[in-house]
Amino acid sequence: MSHGKQFTLYTHKGGPNGWKVAFVLAELGLTYESVYLDFNKNEQKAPEFTKYNPNGRIPALIDHKNKDFTVWESNAIIVYLVEKYDTAHRISAATPEDKILQLQWLFFQASGQGRACFSPYFGQAIWFKVYHAEKVPSAIERYQKETARVISVLDGVLSKQEWLVGGKYSVADISFVSWTNAALAAVLPDAQGVNVEKDYPAFWAWHQKLISQDAIKAVWAEKSAL
Amino acid sequence: MSHGKQFTLYTHKGGPNGWKVAFVLAELGLTYESVYLDFNKNEQKAPEFTKYNPNGRIPALIDHKNKDFTVWESNAIIVYLVEKYDTAHRISAATPEDKILQLQWLFFQASGQGRACFSPYFGQAIWFKVYHAEKVPSAIERYQKETARVISVLDGVLSKQEWLVGGKYSVADISFVSWTNAALAAVLPDAQGVNVEKDYPAFWAWHQKLISQDAIKAVWAEKSAL
Repeated sequence: MSHGKQFTLYTHKGGPNGWKVAFVLAELGLTYESVYLDFNKNEQKAPEFTKYNPNGRIPALIDHKNKDFTVWESNAIIVYLVEKYDTAHRISAATPEDKILQLQWLFFQASGQGRACFSPYFGQAIWFKVYHAEKVPSAIERYQKETARVISVLDGVLSKQEWLVGGKYSVADISFVSWTNAALAAVLPDAQGVNVEKDYPAFWAWHQKLISQDAIKAVWAEKSAL
Repeated sequence: MSHGKQFTLYTHKGGPNGWKVAFVLAELGLTYESVYLDFNKNEQKAPEFTKYNPNGRIPALIDHKNKDFTVWESNAIIVYLVEKYDTAHRISAATPEDKILQLQWLFFQASGQGRACFSPYFGQAIWFKVYHAEKVPSAIERYQKETARVISVLDGVLSKQEWLVGGKYSVADISFVSWTNAALAAVLPDAQGVNVEKDYPAFWAWHQKLISQDAIKAVWAEKSAL
């Protein structure tokens, strides 16, 4: 940790999951050094990185002020950060039940919404659109539909409440920002008959509030500058 | 809760995610009534169920001894159960750091390994093999490879330690059982060049130990009897 900051964050300039963790670090005012892995050089599969994350995926986080405790899986990292460094529960659930509901939404985000490169719905949709050797229209359409379905689930809930958990802005909400941005940019534009702003107004308003948060704006500006 | 048991578990006779929760309920000796939804009748999308889980997926759990607290997402349910009812940490992590590592593996399981019907790798592989209107060999092959890759990650870790977290059998391990069974039965048999027992001996030995646990054996026998 020659960089002198509290954390080292192994991440990627494009992948949404690393930025999700950066949002939370920024919200909590914690210092971190980002190490951007180069997927073209397959750095995420090199032993220097897989000794931290055997799954060979970003992000991974090392906490130099906690005996170099190392954790991977973006939403597990987020829970670690708020459990240890948001003891005032400014951006995290406070009661045992709300903590479980926060976790419920984090799992919904992780498995329903996305993971870098090629997994659940959003990522799959990108993979099928861009990388798949054969063009498979029915598969693309299926993922676009599933992306819209995940948004519709959120819209239904957010039409009855302002935030996902505990009546306040929390990491449950923050966890969705970077993948929603990816979906709006890369998955949905050519999905037939889907107009997110018009069809899912509660989801849309929530996302607009999220991307207006100071910490999120600051981190996203950093991403754009890279 | 006319059934008089502590929990109602909304689940499915076939889907792996409901059985995962049943394993943990059985391990903790908790009483529950299973309500099996009929996907052919689309019961998981009916208002009687989506009032509990707006995502329209199984499982969902109601705790009648905690003001009917309701939670969905199988791995969030599992964390709820051990946080509240495994205070002796018999099958769950005890220290703050081990709890985070347990969560890390639960996220890896949820996003890397599986979710009912059609999502991450295992589920996707099944969907592509069985349900996809067009047969897409390259997509099937890709999912089979990813399934084998997830197994190889686990094998690498388990070649150096007996259990995933804290040096003991825990819900981190239990969370993988039903999807591994599904993968062995439905995804991998015709994957070319993959022999799980031979290629991934540490993973194989771990899975054999898991399916020999009394609670897991008892619940799996129930499933087979349905």
